[in-house]
Amino acid sequence: MSSSFKTIVVSVGNELLNGRTANTNAQWLCGQVYSLGGEVRRILTVPDDLAAIEEALREALERKPAWIVMTGGLGPTYDDVTLQGVAAALGVPLVEDNRAREMIVRRLKEMKEAGRLDDATLTPERAKMARLPEGSSPLSNPAGTAPGALVRSGDSWVVCLPGVPAEMKAVFLEHVAPRMAVGRLSTMTVEVEVWGQPEASMAPLLKELAEKYQSTYVKSHPKGFEGRSRVLVQLTGRGRVGVDEVMAAKGELLEYLNSKGAEYKVLENPDSG
Amino acid sequence: MSSSFKTIVVSVGNELLNGRTANTNAQWLCGQVYSLGGEVRRILTVPDDLAAIEEALREALERKPAWIVMTGGLGPTYDDVTLQGVAAALGVPLVEDNRAREMIVRRLKEMKEAGRLDDATLTPERAKMARLPEGSSPLSNPAGTAPGALVRSGDSWVVCLPGVPAEMKAVFLEHVAPRMAVGRLSTMTVEVEVWGQPEASMAPLLKELAEKYQSTYVKSHPKGFEGRSRVLVQLTGRGRVGVDEVMAAKGELLEYLNSKGAEYKVLENPDSG
Repeated sequence: MSSSFKTIVVSVGNELLNGRTANTNAQWLCGQVYSLGGEVRRILTVPDDLAAIEEALREALERKPAWIVMTGGLGPTYDDVTLQGVAAALGVPLVEDNRAREMIVRRLKEMKEAGRLDDATLTPERAKMARLPEGSSPLSNPAGTAPGALVRSGDSWVVCLPGVPAEMKAVFLEHVAPRMAVGRLSTMTVEVEVWGQPEASMAPLLKELAEKYQSTYVKSHPKGFEGRSRVLVQLTGRGRVGVDEVMAAKGELLEYLNSKGAEYKVLENPDSG
Repeated sequence: MSSSFKTIVVSVGNELLNGRTANTNAQWLCGQVYSLGGEVRRILTVPDDLAAIEEALREALERKPAWIVMTGGLGPTYDDVTLQGVAAALGVPLVEDNRAREMIVRRLKEMKEAGRLDDATLTPERAKMARLPEGSSPLSNPAGTAPGALVRSGDSWVVCLPGVPAEMKAVFLEHVAPRMAVGRLSTMTVEVEVWGQPEASMAPLLKELAEKYQSTYVKSHPKGFEGRSRVLVQLTGRGRVGVDEVMAAKGELLEYLNSKGAEYKVLENPDSG
């Protein structure tokens, strides 16, 4: 249990290197990491260039920080190449992620319904945002379309956040801050509240998860019926392995629930605040 | 004659890594470099830590940019260790520079006279600011006390600027921007206007400079007497070697003039604007 976790920020964007934009994202992230008990040891800013991004991430990984937080270059246009650079640095392919695709489709639909978008078609440019480095978890973006991505490499978590400040902050606060807090506490709990799926129907999957993820404590609590069934599933892990496992188990559980069209809500580290 | 010169910015300062300060210095420098025809390829931000600074400069040098612009850590306190880190990376000692010491003494005197300082004593802390990596030229600071430093390493110029934005800008505009423009034009002219030193008294030194710096064109123009003698000395060089030589010759000339207590004014690249 280290009192301070080492973090490296990698900022991607031509606008940060031609004087157009101050890197306020890095400043904000440094403040967050600091207040979560970590310390940013370096910030590396590189252009929207595949080789430069790949090289920056390789350099950052060599320093074995607990976290590498990348911002920028997740959008739909041809010059958004951060995820490509991450995949290259990790030596894995970019693969279309169904969960990310789902997030994008849902978001486009919401924006169309809100009158903020004429056409919610999943164009190839929009679908590009669902192509993540193999092994990544997509991070839903409460403030925009492009999902973030989280992937483990060696001893480091690599997280890719959008470059738009409001989106960067929203994805960080929702997905990264709780995990960083865990790094400090070295315990992670995920609670998934599920409506309309009886506990018995989920039991085989939960058993499978418990067997597969030995460091994870998997527990379900039936919460009674209010019209339909409500079940609270808890996944708890301790230490690095435990946290990894909780995340993986959560991914499988949500994939299952999505396939059933179940309604659910996810709470991470409900007690860590 | 390259149309774009590669630059790396190395920002030093704990305040840039704990969220207290946005790196507006780097933003401003990027805009300057861009408008001078260069491009910043990366920004590396590191804490006020000797090993981190040394390492950052080594990494930057390996990339062989035309310029490495460092900011921060030039002040009088124990945690201002940038020049120490630069010396370590270059494998040279820190040595007290008489010109830098002169600049500091003059500045302290001015500040005392302006009522902005009670005591102009050159304390050990203040004298520390005159200790530069061996081979550096001090850069006078029109807006503060700590001189900047400029040193050549391999194919790169390494320049160290103060971290206070007003000082960083003043030193950059006075000393760095003209040299960067030269990098583009690949010609450098320094004009030194001297009062009170007859041309004949300077002739032996000028002859010596012309012989020592073969790529430099050394020329003096007597400008007549208005009460006392006025002489314009021109030093012109082309290409990398020429620019290096002009700078070195200028250094020797100013040292000579200082030793004589002569009044002079320096103009760099008077025609390059």
